[in-house]
Parts: sequence; C-alpha cells; structure tokens
Amino acid sequence: MSKYWSPLVKDLEPYVPGEQPKVDNLIKLNTNENPYGPSPIALVEMKKQIDDSLRLYPDPNADHLKDAIAEYYDTDRSKVFVGNGSDEVLAHTFQAFFQQDAPLLFADITYSFYPVYCNLYQVNFENIPLSDDFELLVEHYLRKNGGILIANPNAPTGRYVELEKIEFLLKNNRDSVIVLDEAYIDFGGESAIQLLDSYDNLLVIQTLSKSRALAGLRVGFALGSPGLIEALERVKNSFNSYPLDRFSIVGAAAAIRDKKYFETTCRRIIVSREELVSGLCERGFQVIPSLANFVFARNKQRDAVELASLLRQKNILVRHFNKPKIKNFLRITVGTEEQCAKLLKALDEIL
Amino acid sequence: MSKYWSPLVKDLEPYVPGEQPKVDNLIKLNTNENPYGPSPIALVEMKKQIDDSLRLYPDPNADHLKDAIAEYYDTDRSKVFVGNGSDEVLAHTFQAFFQQDAPLLFADITYSFYPVYCNLYQVNFENIPLSDDFELLVEHYLRKNGGILIANPNAPTGRYVELEKIEFLLKNNRDSVIVLDEAYIDFGGESAIQLLDSYDNLLVIQTLSKSRALAGLRVGFALGSPGLIEALERVKNSFNSYPLDRFSIVGAAAAIRDKKYFETTCRRIIVSREELVSGLCERGFQVIPSLANFVFARNKQRDAVELASLLRQKNILVRHFNKPKIKNFLRITVGTEEQCAKLLKALDEIL
Repeated sequence: MSKYWSPLVKDLEPYVPGEQPKVDNLIKLNTNENPYGPSPIALVEMKKQIDDSLRLYPDPNADHLKDAIAEYYDTDRSKVFVGNGSDEVLAHTFQAFFQQDAPLLFADITYSFYPVYCNLYQVNFENIPLSDDFELLVEHYLRKNGGILIANPNAPTGRYVELEKIEFLLKNNRDSVIVLDEAYIDFGGESAIQLLDSYDNLLVIQTLSKSRALAGLRVGFALGSPGLIEALERVKNSFNSYPLDRFSIVGAAAAIRDKKYFETTCRRIIVSREELVSGLCERGFQVIPSLANFVFARNKQRDAVELASLLRQKNILVRHFNKPKIKNFLRITVGTEEQCAKLLKALDEIL
Repeated sequence: MSKYWSPLVKDLEPYVPGEQPKVDNLIKLNTNENPYGPSPIALVEMKKQIDDSLRLYPDPNADHLKDAIAEYYDTDRSKVFVGNGSDEVLAHTFQAFFQQDAPLLFADITYSFYPVYCNLYQVNFENIPLSDDFELLVEHYLRKNGGILIANPNAPTGRYVELEKIEFLLKNNRDSVIVLDEAYIDFGGESAIQLLDSYDNLLVIQTLSKSRALAGLRVGFALGSPGLIEALERVKNSFNSYPLDRFSIVGAAAAIRDKKYFETTCRRIIVSREELVSGLCERGFQVIPSLANFVFARNKQRDAVELASLLRQKNILVRHFNKPKIKNFLRITVGTEEQCAKLLKALDEIL
C-alpha cells in the first residue's frame, strides 16, 4: 500500500469476477452469460448510434430506457432507476439505504459482491445462514435490521424463494428497505415487482446481462417507490451524471421491448436446464433445485477443484468458489443444447 | 425525503449537468462537446461490436484500452486506470485518496462537481480563492492538506496554469496526492503526464468526451504511479467489475490511436477559438484567456442571464452559472467555424 491512500482503501477486499478468457474456442460456462445473442432488434438500434452524434453527451436521465422498462412492467417512470450494470445499481443501493445503525441482513452464501460493498460503504452487516441444502428461511430475517438483501433466485445456488414468503417478510418488516436482487428471475421465478404498489420499502433490482443477453453492454435497473428511487438518483447524480452511454440506452430499451425474442430464448434455456439437471443427476451429481440460468452441483465421488480442472483441459470453463460450505460444488452456466451435451460428454470421459 | 434513506442521502446536493435538449436544430454551445464527430476509425471499430458477442461480459480490466493509452503516452499499462467517463474516475479518486484528516484544497471557482464528491464521500475541503481575473496562484496551495485538486485548464474559466508552476507545487508538496483534471488539456495546454516519472504523488485525469469527441461513449482515464493506480483499482473492483462496455473499450482505444484525426480536429478548434475570442472582444466582451474548447466571457453592458435567454430565442444554447463572482459571465463552447459565425451574428442582432 502507499502512504497516499485513504485509510479505507487498504482494508478493501475487492470482488473477483469470473475469468474472462482471451482465448477462443472455450465453452464458457463460468459467468452465467446467455448462450444466445441479444435481440436482433436491439442490435439494429445500436447500429444506428454509430455516427457523429457520439460527440454529444447521452441523456443523463436515460428517459428513453426508463420508459421502456416502465411500459414493460406497466408502471411509471418515477419508479424506475437505471445504472451501468446491476452492480452499479447495487453499489448505489448500499450507499443510499444501508448505512444504518442496525445491521444489513443477507445470507451467508449468496452473491459475494455484497460484503465487498459493505466494506466500501462501511455498512454493518450480519450473515443469516441458509439451511444445509441452501434454503433461505425468511423467518430468520425477522429481527432488528438496517435493511434486508435477498438474491432471488440466489447465486451461486440457484435456489428460489416463493413470492408468498417474500410477501410475508415484507408484511413483517416495515421499518427498513428490503432489496431483491432478481438478476436471474426470468428463468422461471416470479418477480416481486407485482408487490411494489403495496410496499414502499421494496426495491427490486434486475439486469440486462442475463435474460436479455447484454452483459457486454452494462445495463441494470431498479424498481421501487418514488421515495426510494429519489435516494438512488441523489447518489447517482453525486457520482456520475451520465452512467449510461448512447448504445446502452437504445440497446437496452429495444431489448426490453422485444418481448417475443426474450420469451423464446428464456424458454429455451429453461428446457436446457432441466435436461442438464437430469444429465448431471444420472452422472452421480447432487444438483440444488435451480430457477436460474445455472446449476449448482456436487459430484458425490470427485473433488470439485479437480473436476473443474479436468473440464478446463477439455476447454470447458465452470466456476468454483473456494469457500466454506460450498467448496465441493461447481456452478455451471446453462449453455446452448449443444454446449450442455458437450459438457455431459466431457463428464462421461472424466468420471 | 423518506425514512428509509441512509442519513447521508438527505444532505447530498447533486451536480446539475448542462441541459441536454431533446429538440433538434439547436446550436449547442453549453456542454463543451466537440463540434466534430469522433474518429471515423473509432466508428468502424464500434460497428464491429454489433454482434452476438454482446452477450459476453467485457474484459473487466479493459486491457485493450489501457494498452492504447499507455502506448500513446509512452508509458506502462500499470500506470493507467480507466473508467466510465472522467466523472467516475474522479469519484473513485475522491474515495481512494482524499478521505484524510487535513482538508482537500481546490479553487473557489472550478468544476462544480468537486464539492458534490466531497459531500458524497465526506471529504473535508477548503476552497482557495482565484485572483480577481481567475488566475490560480500555486503559492496559495502550500499549506497543510489532504490532497490538492486542480482542473487545468480550469472550468468554467478556461485559464491554464503553466507546467513549471505545477512542478513547483509538486516539488513542495510531497505528502499528499496532487490531482490534475486535464479534461481540456488537448486544446493548447501541456499535459503534466511528462512529470509522472518524477512524482509518485501525481495523478493526471483525462477524458475522451472533449478532444476525442466521444462524450456519448463515456470513457475517462487516469495516469499515475502504480501505487496510486492500485488504490483506484481497489475502489473500482469494490464498486463495479465491468464499468466499461464493449463499445467503450474498442471505440476509445481506436480514437486514441487515430492521432492524425485527433490533431487535425484539435487544431481546427484552437483556430476557431482564437477567432471567436476576437469576435467577442470586438463586440464589447471581456474574455478570460482560454486554452480550453470554450471561452468564459462577460459583456460589459448586458446582463448575462438576459443575454443567454436572448441567444436561446435564436436557438443558441450557452451556459450560465448563477454563482458569486461569475454570475456576469457566460461559458460558450467553441463550435464549428459556421456555428461560431452564427453566434457572432446573433450577438450583432442582440447587442
């Protein structure tokens, strides 16, 4: 460290994203990207941005995109916030709501960026243990808190909490914000967005990186009551006036509006997931029930690190987390039908 | 405000960017955009990104862009940091270096986002007054501080501090970071990047939004010693793994590499600026000496708000800041030769 750093910096433990390999020909099942490309209509819209208008700043409020999201969810622009990926939306969320005396509550096994944000924004937090099979028990969250954060479906397990349980929690927790990180909701779960009108302390965060296949564009959004959205706007406008570039605004809006393409590709991924789960079970894996575009699985005989490494030798990338309780598991993104078949074939050769 | 906000949020006074009008046919001289489009080679590179690869995350380290910047400035990738516009780079800079006991020092009249960042990150600061004609006197910065921040050329005045004076300051201030915000350096100033090898407490921040005409793409960068860059990377990786999308990485790299286009358009803007300054002086304006792509000018007879409003009626947008010491001034972006001529003609009709 350098003597010039702010005191906070030396204690940061930055998030480590999954590998983005620079070699081709890899079957990349490690960062939960969509195996299908983005909406062709979105590609056309982005192409239209390639001109001299790039010399001009984008709309700082990205109203065009907010309107597309509001329309899709049949709500109002004042309930929509957008950011440079859902990671940025999450970061602003921690600063806007979770700097409280009481601790923020989130699961002991969940998106590993959450404790990193806590560190960055000096947010006091408590981990609530999942059950042994990674179930989230909402009753455990009924305690004094400065906020509740639930990834639903959860990462890296893929497990989903039913909407009735989320609503039970909302009913019994009125004094702090409940944030649902729904990055993977479109692969079979039911979004809590339908509860927004009843609970002004609910914030739902989603991303264009998974179900809309635009990880390379960096767009995320949040829906919540206007009071919550205002807090996010205040933080955003104290940080960066123009977080979304011209491509992001039009590309994301077009992808949201292309409902047909979205529904078709999501369905295809769900079908592949169910086939992948069967294939893995047949090969001696325990697979956690998943409503995401990935599965979390443990081979009963073989070590996870070894398996990941053997798969890598066959040009297949999966993700392993070297952490207590989950170090025997692999997180495997649901690829195309062909990629899933190749994975199962590779496992046949290995096991 | 809502009871759910973090206590900090209610005290934020967000930055207000210049208007981005949604009507066409305006001569937009209010946000210092480049009147010429970006490098045609950059447009070609961005077009190549319009495909299914957008489903994949970008390189979290944006090495392709860092390499282009390092090559341009004949330095090493370890001395380069990139972000989603120089505003994001500045935000991380405040958090990485300026959270100190002693106050951050910056001019009383400068980029108005600086006090906003101080608020967001609880940075203690002191404003150092410019001289009556907006000169920055480096001697005034020789006092105990937790950092020094200088926009050079300054905004909104356009005034430039010579490099010898910057080096005098660096020589006499070794215990805190000196940040130069060189958003406008390419329009006639000399960058402090040449001093980097001698001062490990120097950080230079630049943007692609002005001289490279890519405001719509959102890319900024910083150069500094590896120790300073590491602090920025730690903050960035605790905030957002992938701040730059696929378009930004390749478009910015290509723009940096297209040196010829860059130099030609910068020269053209400098020539137009000098003609604009003469034209304004002939029309009874006091013009502050500018090395930026804008001028800061005061009409000796007419009120600035009235002038801005009369220009607006003629579809010409300029920027006015309703602040002490500068409320009689207008900040006018240097447009194309034709736009500058239209502005002068409009002034002839008004005055």
